Amino acid sequence: MSRIDGRTPEQLRPVTIERGWSKHAEGSVLVSFGDTRVLCTASVTEGVPRWRKGSGEGWVTAEYAMLPRSTNTRGDRESVKGRIGGRTHEISRLIGRSLRAVIDYKALGENTIVLDCDVLQADGGTRTAAITGAYVALADAVEWAQQKKLIKAKAQPLTGAVSAVSVGIVDGVPLLDLCYEEDVRAETDMNVVCTGDGRFVEVQGTAEGVPFDRTELNALLDLAVTGAAQLDGIQRAALAVERG
Amino acid sequence: MSRIDGRTPEQLRPVTIERGWSKHAEGSVLVSFGDTRVLCTASVTEGVPRWRKGSGEGWVTAEYAMLPRSTNTRGDRESVKGRIGGRTHEISRLIGRSLRAVIDYKALGENTIVLDCDVLQADGGTRTAAITGAYVALADAVEWAQQKKLIKAKAQPLTGAVSAVSVGIVDGVPLLDLCYEEDVRAETDMNVVCTGDGRFVEVQGTAEGVPFDRTELNALLDLAVTGAAQLDGIQRAALAVERG
Amino acid sequence: MSRIDGRTPEQLRPVTIERGWSKHAEGSVLVSFGDTRVLCTASVTEGVPRWRKGSGEGWVTAEYAMLPRSTNTRGDRESVKGRIGGRTHEISRLIGRSLRAVIDYKALGENTIVLDCDVLQADGGTRTAAITGAYVALADAVEWAQQKKLIKAKAQPLTGAVSAVSVGIVDGVPLLDLCYEEDVRAETDMNVVCTGDGRFVEVQGTAEGVPFDRTELNALLDLAVTGAAQLDGIQRAALAVERG
Amino acid sequence: MSRIDGRTPEQLRPVTIERGWSKHAEGSVLVSFGDTRVLCTASVTEGVPRWRKGSGEGWVTAEYAMLPRSTNTRGDRESVKGRIGGRTHEISRLIGRSLRAVIDYKALGENTIVLDCDVLQADGGTRTAAITGAYVALADAVEWAQQKKLIKAKAQPLTGAVSAVSVGIVDGVPLLDLCYEEDVRAETDMNVVCTGDGRFVEVQGTAEGVPFDRTELNALLDLAVTGAAQLDGIQRAALAVERG
Amino acid sequence: MSRIDGRTPEQLRPVTIERGWSKHAEGSVLVSFGDTRVLCTASVTEGVPRWRKGSGEGWVTAEYAMLPRSTNTRGDRESVKGRIGGRTHEISRLIGRSLRAVIDYKALGENTIVLDCDVLQADGGTRTAAITGAYVALADAVEWAQQKKLIKAKAQPLTGAVSAVSVGIVDGVPLLDLCYEEDVRAETDMNVVCTGDGRFVEVQGTAEGVPFDRTELNALLDLAVTGAAQLDGIQRAALAVERG
Amino acid sequence: MSRIDGRTPEQLRPVTIERGWSKHAEGSVLVSFGDTRVLCTASVTEGVPRWRKGSGEGWVTAEYAMLPRSTNTRGDRESVKGRIGGRTHEISRLIGRSLRAVIDYKALGENTIVLDCDVLQADGGTRTAAITGAYVALADAVEWAQQKKLIKAKAQPLTGAVSAVSVGIVDGVPLLDLCYEEDVRAETDMNVVCTGDGRFVEVQGTAEGVPFDRTELNALLDLAVTGAAQLDGIQRAALAVERG
Repeated sequence: MSRIDGRTPEQLRPVTIERGWSKHAEGSVLVSFGDTRVLCTASVTEGVPRWRKGSGEGWVTAEYAMLPRSTNTRGDRESVKGRIGGRTHEISRLIGRSLRAVIDYKALGENTIVLDCDVLQADGGTRTAAITGAYVALADAVEWAQQKKLIKAKAQPLTGAVSAVSVGIVDGVPLLDLCYEEDVRAETDMNVVCTGDGRFVEVQGTAEGVPFDRTELNALLDLAVTGAAQLDGIQRAALAVERG
Repeated sequence: MSRIDGRTPEQLRPVTIERGWSKHAEGSVLVSFGDTRVLCTASVTEGVPRWRKGSGEGWVTAEYAMLPRSTNTRGDRESVKGRIGGRTHEISRLIGRSLRAVIDYKALGENTIVLDCDVLQADGGTRTAAITGAYVALADAVEWAQQKKLIKAKAQPLTGAVSAVSVGIVDGVPLLDLCYEEDVRAETDMNVVCTGDGRFVEVQGTAEGVPFDRTELNALLDLAVTGAAQLDGIQRAALAVERG
Repeated sequence: MSRIDGRTPEQLRPVTIERGWSKHAEGSVLVSFGDTRVLCTASVTEGVPRWRKGSGEGWVTAEYAMLPRSTNTRGDRESVKGRIGGRTHEISRLIGRSLRAVIDYKALGENTIVLDCDVLQADGGTRTAAITGAYVALADAVEWAQQKKLIKAKAQPLTGAVSAVSVGIVDGVPLLDLCYEEDVRAETDMNVVCTGDGRFVEVQGTAEGVPFDRTELNALLDLAVTGAAQLDGIQRAALAVERG
Repeated sequence: MSRIDGRTPEQLRPVTIERGWSKHAEGSVLVSFGDTRVLCTASVTEGVPRWRKGSGEGWVTAEYAMLPRSTNTRGDRESVKGRIGGRTHEISRLIGRSLRAVIDYKALGENTIVLDCDVLQADGGTRTAAITGAYVALADAVEWAQQKKLIKAKAQPLTGAVSAVSVGIVDGVPLLDLCYEEDVRAETDMNVVCTGDGRFVEVQGTAEGVPFDRTELNALLDLAVTGAAQLDGIQRAALAVERG
Repeated sequence: MSRIDGRTPEQLRPVTIERGWSKHAEGSVLVSFGDTRVLCTASVTEGVPRWRKGSGEGWVTAEYAMLPRSTNTRGDRESVKGRIGGRTHEISRLIGRSLRAVIDYKALGENTIVLDCDVLQADGGTRTAAITGAYVALADAVEWAQQKKLIKAKAQPLTGAVSAVSVGIVDGVPLLDLCYEEDVRAETDMNVVCTGDGRFVEVQGTAEGVPFDRTELNALLDLAVTGAAQLDGIQRAALAVERG
Repeated sequence: MSRIDGRTPEQLRPVTIERGWSKHAEGSVLVSFGDTRVLCTASVTEGVPRWRKGSGEGWVTAEYAMLPRSTNTRGDRESVKGRIGGRTHEISRLIGRSLRAVIDYKALGENTIVLDCDVLQADGGTRTAAITGAYVALADAVEWAQQKKLIKAKAQPLTGAVSAVSVGIVDGVPLLDLCYEEDVRAETDMNVVCTGDGRFVEVQGTAEGVPFDRTELNALLDLAVTGAAQLDGIQRAALAVERG
């Protein structure tokens, strides 16, 4: 039994990572997970927020947003509403935490890197695509900072790679990398953030309909780990290419 | 080796649930997990938000907040800042989702129940205390609505119980129900929301320091399940008493 | 002819002052005027707002708020609305002015004390309960600051005590300390803030229905002064006890 | 001993009331209390706020604001700050309550009158000038509504006149109608709103420095009543003239 | 064929400029273009915004706003709405740019002048009246700063004069200085800001109905230039008088 | 003498219009003017804003925004700041007016089309690129609405085409379509919006440094008209292709 887009349950959507998408940002990636497209830019600035000054340590943070018509029906702009919604806040925080998990603040020195993840087109999995793409933009930004000598020689601020994937149970079947239609129908939905060596950074599982048991949880975690391994390979391949 | 407050790793803090704390609310609970104290009130109103009108289904939502001096240093009021912070948004949403997991919207009918969880004193685990207490307030509010005939005879909007507990790894040891000092030191921090019959509603694990592996994740889940079972018993005991 | 709760016209509701309610705050009081319950915390910080720096003088300010379900019907949170209402502003300013009336800024030195008065349950007279309780929390905070040597030896920042009580005319009869139902029915409503020695700090009288004349005004002031004297005694008794 | 501007203690500043200042508003007055100048406009609209619909009763409300350079140093615009300050809220509410004290809602019918009081130049007493001027604008607006048949024939929405004046104790001497310099130096400051027949609508006394006693309070009230009587005469004279 | 108010197509409305309107501001003008009345105040402060510090250069900026009942129907206050509307922003920026066009920042030195333009009564052309009046207030403020020695001896911050006028095509006829009724009916509407020597600072033409061609554009520009020349004369005459 | 990017003064940058960029929107275009890239989406909804209901007429509006790192240095998000800046407001309004100039509201019927113009990369001329691209997205959305029968058979809501281009004087030379570096250096900067038949919809000229005279103005207008004619051709060519 195949999925709506013909995939097998344990198959990712086509994932592409286009580096150097923006001429201004120190790192920039247009990442696609199927029809989900997120523009991730990394901005490096010298100095850190006030509460961190003098610590000798850097900071990495992230902001996530959706363009108003990235979705099937147009959403009001948060700038027009004058406030950021809960979901936006939650995802921005998740992306920031995920990237900080592979950052050595000392090695980064008192520099700040902001990752902006703007969803140009949404079809499920925008937060996982954002994390996966933002890591690559971050890696490029770190390299830029090294070349500009903002970071001490031999210091290596990145302690590993990080990527994310969604998994869920639809009609009783655990599926990898849900598209929007699957996401809507999922009984359980989980986002898993893994390091390149297969350990967990974040595990967020939610019962959308009925609560889930330990067996289901284990099946989802197994699936997520295989997805993360594939994403790690795709990130490595993207970063192996000379930057455009 | 014992914990800072003398507990064993798998021991909850003293948990108390004081029902009928407020004379105005349809359900109200002052819940304590050790020094963490949260006032949970349930407000029932006839009718539902616009997007749900005419569906015949009810709605349950939650708002979480901290009093400015519930913490060790005073925090600015979000009303004064004019905006709600990301953490507040995130926890409000988590509480709402957790309670909705045990609600049968049809049985509730077109009524809305709002759970307000206000932290009077914080010492770690405010969100898990909030969920655990809010469930009891919700149960009282549902009973009130049944007595007021807002809910159809024989309709049972509650499909089960729900409680939450934190677990984390501190100095390599998995601990149940972290107090603030443990929470700060935890390498991995996880909040687990369970139904009364031991299934999962939410699993949110975060690597604060180093990423965690599957073995650690399993140990934490095991611990959480035992804590949830105890909390379920405490909730049952509280609800068994005639309401004040 | 007795009142709705059996009191005589010149009788206060039962007033309780529970010190040391919070483990974090430098001063904290749960004050009750009948069913009205307000949590007052005093937070001491070194330093003063920018406009006062270098003056050698301290500052005392207050913030008042109501929990959403402290009232009979739930009110929207001001943090969610993104703005503070006029009533909240007005009462916060009143509390701040009232407490500053008994503060010697020079003796306080460049320290700031913020009084947070959060209404947990409202039944009329929340602002007068808040002022009466906040004074006790302030006294505890001042003592704490003295012990911590934030305040110079022998300096006495408190120049007196302060308390507040409402009075009003209901069905032509002047009443002391109105509960909610009386407050709603009052033709004239007055809040009076007095020092411990019976002088006035604030007098705010409002004709809710018909304007009032000088005779009525005098009767209300007489009543308020007797109430304030009783509250002063209750505050003294509370402060006479060794702090918990 | 005379005052800074040569007045005797019980003397008002020159008060002028210029009706019909604006060509658009249903009532408009430029009122001056010495150098304090406030533009008061009354806007009549059919219908009432939602919470009052179907009651057959009208509504009167007020908004007060200061132009940024109405004061000696420029203040930031509240529109630019994105929020209304406590003082503005407090005065707007005071003006609204004062005017509503002389309104018969039934006679007004389901019409709303909004009084905008914008301070063009401030020199103390802006709220008392605003109330005094707004009453005249309100009277003109009511007459306009009568002519337009928005109000039933013979219905008389105004039940009396209302004016306001400040009093205060400066260097131990009770003074009427404080200018800015006196206001700053006052030990006690009181705003009194009276009806045309000399009864009280609002009495707001504040000890700026030392608390005040009953004798001082009585002296201030006596002074305020004489001032209000004079203002009532000035309002009558202004309204006796055919509207421009 | 004459216009609604009897003017010829190339005739301005009566323009008056009343200097020294406010006792507090360093420059203040009540300007009228017919029934349009705008209060323009200029506030001088030492120092410049952060981004300009240490440059040795000054700054001039402007804020425009309308009183709620300056128009035929009352508009909500932007302070109450909590946000500034697009039109307000646009006009504030236009006024600021127009005045900066005749400012020599170096000669001004590190001083800031803020022009507040508050529309007391609107009848079309509020932005052009504001610019024309604000220039005169600015000239007075500059002179004040020279007398106070805030500006170096012999430094002349003003490099010329600036005024503004609207032009538009109504029923196919180009008209100068549109009143509100003409503005509403105009097919094309243009605001032109000119220096005293007849050059352009801003040209903003908008097709309200059908697009306009080059011939129409030229006719409007011709008309605007003649209007600007007259306004320059009126400004000179106003400034020639000794300040009140 | 050639320009920074080798163009002649009267030469446009390479302009590309990629239709059907988004799978969700009824019309979507990625437009490039050199390195300036703007994503324009058109969202069609049945119904109109409240103030237009029952008129039988439609509405077209626009919102412009820049991604935080579309520029050389990262700008704070307006959603995070909680307010929309003046420049954003101004450009959104300009785009809306420009598109409405070629819309027949009656033919559109009671439908609303919102154009979102999000700048992905900025290099000068973002507003002109936005208008030029948004017209094409609008044309596609209108066609979609015709196919969906939201618009009456034979009704033609588009009365013409519209495009926009910037012109400016740099070092005394009038240049067409300024890139960012030229824009910064321009003495005069003008944005011109033209219909496909060469008439003007908007003309906005600003003296950035010294005021400009009529001769310069004429030279800029001449240049703009030739640029608009070329853009009209590019739009026609893009729309001639079958939609992807």
